[in-house]
Amino acid sequence: MNAAEPRDRRPAILVVGSVALDSVRTPFGEVDEALGGSASYFSISASHFAPVYMIAVVGEDFPAAHRILFESRGIDLSGLETAPGRTFRWRGEYTVELGHAHTLETQLNVFSTFHPRLDETHRAAPYVFLANIDPDLQLEVLRQSRQARLTLSDTMNYWIARKPDRVLDVLREVDIALLNEEEARALAGETQLIRAADRLLEQGARAVIIKKGEHGALYQSRDDRFITPAFPVASLNDPTGAGDSFAGGFLGWLAGTGRSDAGSIRQALVVGSVMASIAIEGFSPTRLVETDRAEIGERMRVLHALVHFDLDPAALAATRP
Amino acid sequence: MNAAEPRDRRPAILVVGSVALDSVRTPFGEVDEALGGSASYFSISASHFAPVYMIAVVGEDFPAAHRILFESRGIDLSGLETAPGRTFRWRGEYTVELGHAHTLETQLNVFSTFHPRLDETHRAAPYVFLANIDPDLQLEVLRQSRQARLTLSDTMNYWIARKPDRVLDVLREVDIALLNEEEARALAGETQLIRAADRLLEQGARAVIIKKGEHGALYQSRDDRFITPAFPVASLNDPTGAGDSFAGGFLGWLAGTGRSDAGSIRQALVVGSVMASIAIEGFSPTRLVETDRAEIGERMRVLHALVHFDLDPAALAATRP
Repeated sequence: MNAAEPRDRRPAILVVGSVALDSVRTPFGEVDEALGGSASYFSISASHFAPVYMIAVVGEDFPAAHRILFESRGIDLSGLETAPGRTFRWRGEYTVELGHAHTLETQLNVFSTFHPRLDETHRAAPYVFLANIDPDLQLEVLRQSRQARLTLSDTMNYWIARKPDRVLDVLREVDIALLNEEEARALAGETQLIRAADRLLEQGARAVIIKKGEHGALYQSRDDRFITPAFPVASLNDPTGAGDSFAGGFLGWLAGTGRSDAGSIRQALVVGSVMASIAIEGFSPTRLVETDRAEIGERMRVLHALVHFDLDPAALAATRP
Repeated sequence: MNAAEPRDRRPAILVVGSVALDSVRTPFGEVDEALGGSASYFSISASHFAPVYMIAVVGEDFPAAHRILFESRGIDLSGLETAPGRTFRWRGEYTVELGHAHTLETQLNVFSTFHPRLDETHRAAPYVFLANIDPDLQLEVLRQSRQARLTLSDTMNYWIARKPDRVLDVLREVDIALLNEEEARALAGETQLIRAADRLLEQGARAVIIKKGEHGALYQSRDDRFITPAFPVASLNDPTGAGDSFAGGFLGWLAGTGRSDAGSIRQALVVGSVMASIAIEGFSPTRLVETDRAEIGERMRVLHALVHFDLDPAALAATRP
């Protein structure tokens, strides 16, 4: 096969991120060395809507079963490098306040020298997700993806604390930047989220998505502002990967529909919210793997009904103090 | 005038709460001994939609200007007692994290022996709001308002810590209980808000509204669940009174329209969100006084647009991984 010849002509998504073995404990259970990492959650989430190319690195100890899982979801692993050494490992714990993971141990292993290598096919992907890797690496990927139709970045407090200028460079380069509440507040230097979003746009972002955990997500571009609630999950088990699953649903919807108008971006945010809600119902990406269009569509309907109300100007006019 | 004869035959709201003189400092300014208290914010907010009867107590030092303000809004002060002594005073400060007031000083003064006294007209009010007073007093008022069409209660952590069983008694007696995030979590013993709301219903509540500050509000009854975002305010100045202004908009809408179907409750929650957003733009209830139907209607439209998206099952079916 000629590397310059796209392997698949459908609009594809490129993700650059981590593949890890996670050991996670929450009040609801625990797993040991289960599949994790931003690229894993993102890919499996997005794979429900569009083909995905994964750029990441694993060690020689990476279980074959996980590769088989990715491939069963149509995820292209031509960019998944196997490096000498052990796979990235993360061990964390969630207390009953589920908002934050307490990292107990991080072994970067092969991920410490990760350097994304893109071939012609990868560079031609019209949708690109830069997961929370070093912003210098994110910028390097962006320079190779000049033809991309839509680029989305994530980041983390670690990089905001160490390389705030580089994080801002990425924010200015991508079409949409994804941050969580704390990251948005830290980067913008604003406590109120609405003002933080405005400030990030003043700092050069074209559009931002601020993830608010159980409060949903806020989207702010130069032309539109949208809020999606979180889907009310009945049984949260493990918040790990919620943000990357959100990103996968969001970009998956845009790639899968091939649309990028304001209405489709709103739908994509809802799909993101839905995929995050599914991810956190299981440990590792187990629930993301087993979900289907019927469940996703049903959750979109629930979110639609959750926020619906009728405007009634006549009733307003008729109230008389 | 015969006390047994209602002074006004339109559906009226009774509020039992505090009238205070607040000294507040926020990062955006400060006021000294300005009009405050739960009954003040609630009444002025609700007065845009329906007549309000206020049951509260002030001292002999209460400025006449504030009475004139209440009366100019059509608020009935026949239940506003003037007791020997000084008016309730509260002094608080908000740091840049605007979520919580730091109380610097509380002088209960005449409020320390407040005992609500209702006459026949007050008892006939079809809508009742029990602001965050002692739950034993709330229960006393409820026993006198047996004919009320809709009762709404508020509470505060102070009472949840000291009289949790009485707070739960109130919750079981009223039609809808209003709580903020921390209060809902504390009372339900659940961290996730959705589960906290469910738990409160299991504990006997008919319906709850959980106020989430800048994240809006969650409504949960036995038949419906609704989320309204907070209106994105351009210039927050003083968060004091947001919850009571929300309650005033909510109950004001239901009284003013005379409706209580699920759709009207959703609209009422949006009106609550709107009135809270207006209140926090000024110190004291100044902005609440000067707002009008046009501004309220415009903010309802903004909230409607903020959460709107089209369901598109065909697009979902057409995405092909």
